[in-house]
Amino acid sequence: MGVFGERLAEAVRRYGPLCVGLDPRWDCLPRSLRRLSPEEALLPQASQRIQQFCLRVLELTRPYSGVVKFQSAFFELLGPPGLQVMQSLIQAARQQGWITIWDAKRGDVASTAVAYAAAALTGCTLDQQTLPVWDVDALTVQPYVGGDGLEPFLEAAQRTGRGIFVLVRTSNPGAGLFQDLWCDGRPLYLHVAEAVARWNAPTVGASGLGDVGAVVGATHPRQLAELRRAYPHLWFLVPGYGAQGGTAEDIRQTAFRSDGLGAIVNSSRSLVFPFRPDDPDWESRIIQAAQRISWELNSALYPQ
Amino acid sequence: MGVFGERLAEAVRRYGPLCVGLDPRWDCLPRSLRRLSPEEALLPQASQRIQQFCLRVLELTRPYSGVVKFQSAFFELLGPPGLQVMQSLIQAARQQGWITIWDAKRGDVASTAVAYAAAALTGCTLDQQTLPVWDVDALTVQPYVGGDGLEPFLEAAQRTGRGIFVLVRTSNPGAGLFQDLWCDGRPLYLHVAEAVARWNAPTVGASGLGDVGAVVGATHPRQLAELRRAYPHLWFLVPGYGAQGGTAEDIRQTAFRSDGLGAIVNSSRSLVFPFRPDDPDWESRIIQAAQRISWELNSALYPQ
Repeated sequence: MGVFGERLAEAVRRYGPLCVGLDPRWDCLPRSLRRLSPEEALLPQASQRIQQFCLRVLELTRPYSGVVKFQSAFFELLGPPGLQVMQSLIQAARQQGWITIWDAKRGDVASTAVAYAAAALTGCTLDQQTLPVWDVDALTVQPYVGGDGLEPFLEAAQRTGRGIFVLVRTSNPGAGLFQDLWCDGRPLYLHVAEAVARWNAPTVGASGLGDVGAVVGATHPRQLAELRRAYPHLWFLVPGYGAQGGTAEDIRQTAFRSDGLGAIVNSSRSLVFPFRPDDPDWESRIIQAAQRISWELNSALYPQ
Repeated sequence: MGVFGERLAEAVRRYGPLCVGLDPRWDCLPRSLRRLSPEEALLPQASQRIQQFCLRVLELTRPYSGVVKFQSAFFELLGPPGLQVMQSLIQAARQQGWITIWDAKRGDVASTAVAYAAAALTGCTLDQQTLPVWDVDALTVQPYVGGDGLEPFLEAAQRTGRGIFVLVRTSNPGAGLFQDLWCDGRPLYLHVAEAVARWNAPTVGASGLGDVGAVVGATHPRQLAELRRAYPHLWFLVPGYGAQGGTAEDIRQTAFRSDGLGAIVNSSRSLVFPFRPDDPDWESRIIQAAQRISWELNSALYPQ
């Protein structure tokens, strides 16, 4: 009960709300890492370089954050070798004490959702043995399929003290096409938020926060503030900070509760790729970016 | 323009509307295939058995169907070796002349959707070389994120003559939680269908059908009929037939246009696992199931 939510509270108290977003875009990698031998298969080689880069990012950003989010798409783009690298990076991150979030936005009807939830959280059972697959602390899920498609994720998360984040208000400019449709007196995303709060309620722990959170983009400060007021017990995973346009001003007094908890703010491009590909000093740039962003977030949280 | 939709029309004219759903659930496999050596890693072994089983299913059902749907979750559950098997099965199916659909229900904000679309459809570009990853003819996608999250899929599909199917009305009992919410005078799923029809319109080919289709469950015959009437140019991918409760009666005069085109009906459990695990005659059971289901669907289409 409340294991994931409490672990997240502990991490945020210790490191602040910064979540390191690992979106390893090949074209953004330092050029020195991007030399591939035409003699060998390219996708496994590129996957190894991405592993090397991500391990370094984990090391450099460790003092500034307790939570890392793996964007599944960029590993998937490299096929099975990329996914193998993702799996080993998740394992490495957990061993280093990070809370790991798999941003895979999964969602399907119940019997299929059981398989996705097992892959992400509880493991694959073969001949009475259960083997870990992605083995993350939490994953992101899609709401469209409905409650019975989400239950297997909730159930798997509760059984293992893990968490889920349901898409409520995404950070993209076109998010409103369906999410803002006016349904029975309020926009669709508020109906989704209400369901998320209902699933979260039985998991709320000592911190006043639970294991079932909401994804709410930093690019929509008004909605963020409205959701914060209405749902004090929900963790928010806030993407869209930095490169997508969300600012510290946007999340100040909108994303957080008065105790400074309640939100983790993801930064991907601005944090992980704050350099030009041919900059030999890319490691220092990452450290500087981590320092700056974590300072920005902390001063948004605790203004003078 | 209209390449995927036309290929689908050709396949349905030739084989009928049956779509073979490959959801390789380990516990349903013939027991004879499920012997694992405790000395070797279990997930790669299980993946190989699943490959062996699925190749046999493709062979046995080939005379009855032109379209195969890979349920990504059951391959993902076996981790990277399972996904490698999925990749090689997709390749084998395409070489055998199947139209391949990857049921992965992907969906994310634009810059991430670009990576998912490349993985599924156009390939991964490294150093000016583009390498195929999943390389399917079509994939299923989630609508919740909105139009700018779907555009990269549309764009990648059009560039390569492939297709996408957007979730509109899913087959699960709890589908209505959000999909039936009443928004501006009609349920949410009709808003989604309207957007899908808009994206499909520029792709409509000689058959009167296009490359951007909708997922609509056989378990909701009333909605299926309503959507068929309203959107004659949309291909429907219809799950939920058989084990989930949808019958030939449910789809008769609801899923198809008067020319017999417009829908492919997926069958997974009833078609691929119509045997008890210890039945030595499982291969004949699959052939019988394929014959029966394809007869049922054809008589629903062309009643006496």
